[in-house]
Amino acid sequence: MTERVVLAYSGGLDTSVCIGWIAEETGAEVIAVAVDVGQGGEDLDVIRKRALACGAVAAEVADAKDEFADEYCLPAIKANALYMDRYPLVSALSRPVIVKHLVAAARKHGASTVAHGCTGKGNDQVRFEAGISALAPDLRCIAPVRDYAMTRDKAIAFAEKAGLPIATTRKSPFSIDQNAFGRAVETGFLEDLWNAPTEDVYAYTEDPAAARAADEVVVTFRAGAPVALDGRPVTVLQAVQQLNARAGAQGVGRIDMVEDRLVGIKSREVYEAPGALALITAHQELENVTVERELARYKRQVEQRWGELVYDGLWFSPLKRALDGFVDEANQVVSGDVRMTLHGGRAVVTGRRSAQSLYDFDLATYDTGDTFDQSLSKGFIELFGMSSKIAAKRDLAG
Amino acid sequence: MTERVVLAYSGGLDTSVCIGWIAEETGAEVIAVAVDVGQGGEDLDVIRKRALACGAVAAEVADAKDEFADEYCLPAIKANALYMDRYPLVSALSRPVIVKHLVAAARKHGASTVAHGCTGKGNDQVRFEAGISALAPDLRCIAPVRDYAMTRDKAIAFAEKAGLPIATTRKSPFSIDQNAFGRAVETGFLEDLWNAPTEDVYAYTEDPAAARAADEVVVTFRAGAPVALDGRPVTVLQAVQQLNARAGAQGVGRIDMVEDRLVGIKSREVYEAPGALALITAHQELENVTVERELARYKRQVEQRWGELVYDGLWFSPLKRALDGFVDEANQVVSGDVRMTLHGGRAVVTGRRSAQSLYDFDLATYDTGDTFDQSLSKGFIELFGMSSKIAAKRDLAG
Amino acid sequence: MTERVVLAYSGGLDTSVCIGWIAEETGAEVIAVAVDVGQGGEDLDVIRKRALACGAVAAEVADAKDEFADEYCLPAIKANALYMDRYPLVSALSRPVIVKHLVAAARKHGASTVAHGCTGKGNDQVRFEAGISALAPDLRCIAPVRDYAMTRDKAIAFAEKAGLPIATTRKSPFSIDQNAFGRAVETGFLEDLWNAPTEDVYAYTEDPAAARAADEVVVTFRAGAPVALDGRPVTVLQAVQQLNARAGAQGVGRIDMVEDRLVGIKSREVYEAPGALALITAHQELENVTVERELARYKRQVEQRWGELVYDGLWFSPLKRALDGFVDEANQVVSGDVRMTLHGGRAVVTGRRSAQSLYDFDLATYDTGDTFDQSLSKGFIELFGMSSKIAAKRDLAG
Amino acid sequence: MTERVVLAYSGGLDTSVCIGWIAEETGAEVIAVAVDVGQGGEDLDVIRKRALACGAVAAEVADAKDEFADEYCLPAIKANALYMDRYPLVSALSRPVIVKHLVAAARKHGASTVAHGCTGKGNDQVRFEAGISALAPDLRCIAPVRDYAMTRDKAIAFAEKAGLPIATTRKSPFSIDQNAFGRAVETGFLEDLWNAPTEDVYAYTEDPAAARAADEVVVTFRAGAPVALDGRPVTVLQAVQQLNARAGAQGVGRIDMVEDRLVGIKSREVYEAPGALALITAHQELENVTVERELARYKRQVEQRWGELVYDGLWFSPLKRALDGFVDEANQVVSGDVRMTLHGGRAVVTGRRSAQSLYDFDLATYDTGDTFDQSLSKGFIELFGMSSKIAAKRDLAG
Repeated sequence: MTERVVLAYSGGLDTSVCIGWIAEETGAEVIAVAVDVGQGGEDLDVIRKRALACGAVAAEVADAKDEFADEYCLPAIKANALYMDRYPLVSALSRPVIVKHLVAAARKHGASTVAHGCTGKGNDQVRFEAGISALAPDLRCIAPVRDYAMTRDKAIAFAEKAGLPIATTRKSPFSIDQNAFGRAVETGFLEDLWNAPTEDVYAYTEDPAAARAADEVVVTFRAGAPVALDGRPVTVLQAVQQLNARAGAQGVGRIDMVEDRLVGIKSREVYEAPGALALITAHQELENVTVERELARYKRQVEQRWGELVYDGLWFSPLKRALDGFVDEANQVVSGDVRMTLHGGRAVVTGRRSAQSLYDFDLATYDTGDTFDQSLSKGFIELFGMSSKIAAKRDLAG
Repeated sequence: MTERVVLAYSGGLDTSVCIGWIAEETGAEVIAVAVDVGQGGEDLDVIRKRALACGAVAAEVADAKDEFADEYCLPAIKANALYMDRYPLVSALSRPVIVKHLVAAARKHGASTVAHGCTGKGNDQVRFEAGISALAPDLRCIAPVRDYAMTRDKAIAFAEKAGLPIATTRKSPFSIDQNAFGRAVETGFLEDLWNAPTEDVYAYTEDPAAARAADEVVVTFRAGAPVALDGRPVTVLQAVQQLNARAGAQGVGRIDMVEDRLVGIKSREVYEAPGALALITAHQELENVTVERELARYKRQVEQRWGELVYDGLWFSPLKRALDGFVDEANQVVSGDVRMTLHGGRAVVTGRRSAQSLYDFDLATYDTGDTFDQSLSKGFIELFGMSSKIAAKRDLAG
Repeated sequence: MTERVVLAYSGGLDTSVCIGWIAEETGAEVIAVAVDVGQGGEDLDVIRKRALACGAVAAEVADAKDEFADEYCLPAIKANALYMDRYPLVSALSRPVIVKHLVAAARKHGASTVAHGCTGKGNDQVRFEAGISALAPDLRCIAPVRDYAMTRDKAIAFAEKAGLPIATTRKSPFSIDQNAFGRAVETGFLEDLWNAPTEDVYAYTEDPAAARAADEVVVTFRAGAPVALDGRPVTVLQAVQQLNARAGAQGVGRIDMVEDRLVGIKSREVYEAPGALALITAHQELENVTVERELARYKRQVEQRWGELVYDGLWFSPLKRALDGFVDEANQVVSGDVRMTLHGGRAVVTGRRSAQSLYDFDLATYDTGDTFDQSLSKGFIELFGMSSKIAAKRDLAG
Repeated sequence: MTERVVLAYSGGLDTSVCIGWIAEETGAEVIAVAVDVGQGGEDLDVIRKRALACGAVAAEVADAKDEFADEYCLPAIKANALYMDRYPLVSALSRPVIVKHLVAAARKHGASTVAHGCTGKGNDQVRFEAGISALAPDLRCIAPVRDYAMTRDKAIAFAEKAGLPIATTRKSPFSIDQNAFGRAVETGFLEDLWNAPTEDVYAYTEDPAAARAADEVVVTFRAGAPVALDGRPVTVLQAVQQLNARAGAQGVGRIDMVEDRLVGIKSREVYEAPGALALITAHQELENVTVERELARYKRQVEQRWGELVYDGLWFSPLKRALDGFVDEANQVVSGDVRMTLHGGRAVVTGRRSAQSLYDFDLATYDTGDTFDQSLSKGFIELFGMSSKIAAKRDLAG
């Protein structure tokens, strides 16, 4: 039987060319798989037909938007996941769900190999391949751009020669990856770290500096998950999408940073993630109200490691699973409402209320009704500082 | 010889009353010590004379603004110190420098006791007393508000009866602590977590939503310390103060959060720290450019612990000293320029350049000149993911 | 109605005197509760009758040995819990189970207060009181030795005057706490850190230096729990008890250390925990075989924090619960056999086998059958070391 | 000019063959460099002459024993470095010092390449190559066994054909790496994890089970470094060597474990490190006496990461340098004496004394002279447990 290769197909020039290129390089039949994670753009059926027109023996499309939101974005919200304290893992979260569909298609079609369009110097190749080897250790991975030196120019030449039904315009100055959780942009002039992004870099967000009226939203969470906006029930996907629109309209969610890639180099990245950042901001503050101090302190470390693992492509790793257990346990109590003002590029929490609140007015107030027994503090301070004091007697005093 | 008590003196009603109150309670002579950490307000000499008029046997004032900036704020900038990822430790940083001056005065005047005006349910009592026992384990600490039940009403009655030269108006609705690094506000209506702060809460920052032209600043760092603004050399104090003015004018630096106090309760806090937050934002991004990935990842954990220790009053602890060693080593390379736009409540980095940069254009670029050998990735991915893959063979595949 | 106090009762002099002492101090009725956590010694019914003879209005005894082993010792084994890398938390683990029974008795008898016999400078007072306030925040705690200055001499005088049916011999030189999981000893001459323990300090272990034949045991674990010894099914309690006997007979399990107490002081402690240490040693090595590397590396940090929390009396804290989730998840795969030699004070693993093993002979072997593709290493090393190499170009080379 | 290659030369068959093999494969001249890190065996001058006889154009030997002990083993002692809580990094520590000498020779002889004899599936290839790229990013690395498929059989054939002056007996069943800090053994029958090591595996240690009289030693440390044994001054090298002899004679220092390699596989390893383990045991306990609690707790995490970095070949990385700063700071106070009994495979601390001790007899004692104010505990416990108690009111009570 002829070998079969499942290809992660986007509908664009590169992966359209890959269909024929892989067939030529390997002699295998190519099955194209397109996964909708909310990236917008063309209709999935148009993409499916193009794959077949480009030579795929089969083409499958999957609407994975809710799956992506519920099983990949939601854990990130619960973990307040921000790689390097900034980046909400937009692309990193989408790779494992795409991988799941690629592996399922490989099983269905009896394929021995999975192909993707990534280069050899980014993170996404790791996320694809580490994901595939976790779910299907027997499958082989290939990346034509990296493994068969399929450059852009060669791809255009191939497409023109083969008469593929795809535009072969010179490359846009932007290299873009987008999905429901956000959008990532790289572009030549930003490779100079001193250059600021220009407005045309952005698509999910309006200019934060433009004059406009503020928006206000109340986000309701249940066990860490957003379940309503302004009192209207929403799915996780709807929460992200509606806040992409509302927070994006206020310029919220732009990120411009120098980032440490897993392959060891630093790169300049620009992201937009209005919904993701608004939700994480609200979720963090609701945790401040509902999560006990020592758990909250430890959770920050767990969150950092969770973000690094996911950034590094280890979504399906045993450590990631064990950290998820911790994060889920901590989120059991994260229920309540957070009110935010969205304006001028900022999502600012202005109110929070929760039946799970650990804030105790009677203990906190300085007004009438104070129940805090201040006489306890003397002993606390003395013993809390005792080990440092004994060391200080030795080290500092004199 | 009569016992002597050194009192941390602010010039306000509470500590003015403390002078006589302590004398009555303990029979000791009271020496008032006022430390200028950039809190603004009255002239130090006016404060000194008021202390004497209120019954202090001696009164000392110290201008510690540069000491505070150089030895307390700068380490916090190097550590990107944000308690709970938000609060730049404004009050927490000022306590140890005040403690140093209190202890010095106690030694000079032969005092056996140090007194402060804190209540028994906040963090500052711990910071004062743990600090004092670290620097001078033999000194006793007292807090009249906590230990002698000196309430506000009793203080007013005492002042009026004693004819102290101090206004005894009913308390302002705001409880405020401020210094060069920022300003902390608590107030009754904010004890309801659902209430938003009103504009009159703020003093260091303008309304971020007001229309105005953006400001742009270039901050130059050397080994982690800000050394110039827009090319003009500055001290750390000047950097903080000038950015307080410029970033504050753009509404940058407001924080509204629920916070975990060391004494175990949650409280609502509002802060303003325009200079601190602008500097930390710039410093973080310069670290992204100059600090190696694994060091950067580990440093985030160190930063969190550093912030917790300082928040918890353990500035003079052995662990704090050892973490400082780590932070200083990491900052050796943090030199260069960061350009920021200050506008609409946001300090946004738009450019960075450094002779210490680890960003390598030739490795990062996707354009001509790319020197990254993509063929290395295959082996990397395979071995990087190997342990997870072997586990997956056991756990997930099937 | 008369107030009621539930007292943690051991049957010894101190807590026997406490019955009357508390009644005198508080006017309350005292209910004595004795919990069997495997401490050995007198029959529980004898103890129960003594409590009544000493004036308790009610007395309850509970056999909590299996509960202690299953719900308190087993989580410690799964967490390889060794405070300061040495101490298997013998006393720290027993306090929460005793607390559970005290609280249950307080509810049953309508008591408002719980009393315990701890001093005011150790860890156990914290463990009792933090535990009680976690399970029953409304209950008050008292400790007559600490709160009513009930010294040993006063206790003897009280017992003699009241004619209590309890021996009032001068105190043994040893202060001992023991249970199924081990034994803790403090004694005057060990307060000099230069003095070595003498043989009479020990009761659970024979002299390791004595000549004897070695013992060999195979411990079988399922999901982290010991389920068989030498192929014979055991409960957790039986595993601990049988290994206390067998490992103790070989001198395994002695610990002599200087320890950091929660109250801020250092103390000298001697422990014996032959079964606990043998089980943890075996469990650690089985984890080495079955747990993936990154999960194993992270788990070490979790284990340390878990041990600190339990040592510090925070068994019922939210962080402890969330860490348990992590530990349980990691232990799902910890099943298999470990063979150990017990001899000369050492428990030495000599073999391990597991259906969950991640050890892959074909990848590990240097002999025929090697399936490891060595050509992958070049790329791995290059990219694994890339970020350090780029930093080195800047920092070290030249 | 002819290319030059510096080869890490051991004098054994493999690296002797490498000389000619590399010359054939690359056309380069080979310079052999042998570094004495205390591995024992042949005289360095004999090794030097053999290299020349095997075709090296130059051969250098270096006595790096003290350098190894002072600059590599000592930091490991200060860090109590035990990978996976067991392995004192014997081979991992020797690679960076060898790398330093290789790089120095490459510079001296104008070589462009460094070669080593490691396989492609172990850790040492990473340690060599990551080290070399850190110190000399311009140098290329080659590993003939890995890169040119130089198997043992081919090596023997090459040696016989070329008439090299080296024995070509069939390989010993043991693969051994040894140096002053310890000895590592791998061997075929141990690749079955259920097999126990046999006595002939060991060379640095006697059978722990043999009957013999115990030895007792007092180790004196200054700032974390061993400076005297039984009162006689020693260098670090002497301390390690003398304790290798004395502790080894008592069977101390054997390790048998399943280990997580950096390349992602698990392997079975047997080590002997009597001096290293005796010194780390003593050093840990002296830290227990002299290091403040919170610093000690944090240092355990730092130690783990330090050990992982060194194991993983990142000795020269920025993070390793920053952690060294922390470890050195913590060790400033680690001075004093530790008395140990060496016997039956165990190094047991029996006494410790230090002018830097934080143990305070008056605070710790339960006898006359107790200065601990027990009344402080009530307030401490209440506030220490406050955040958990508030959470418990919500979560557990009811």
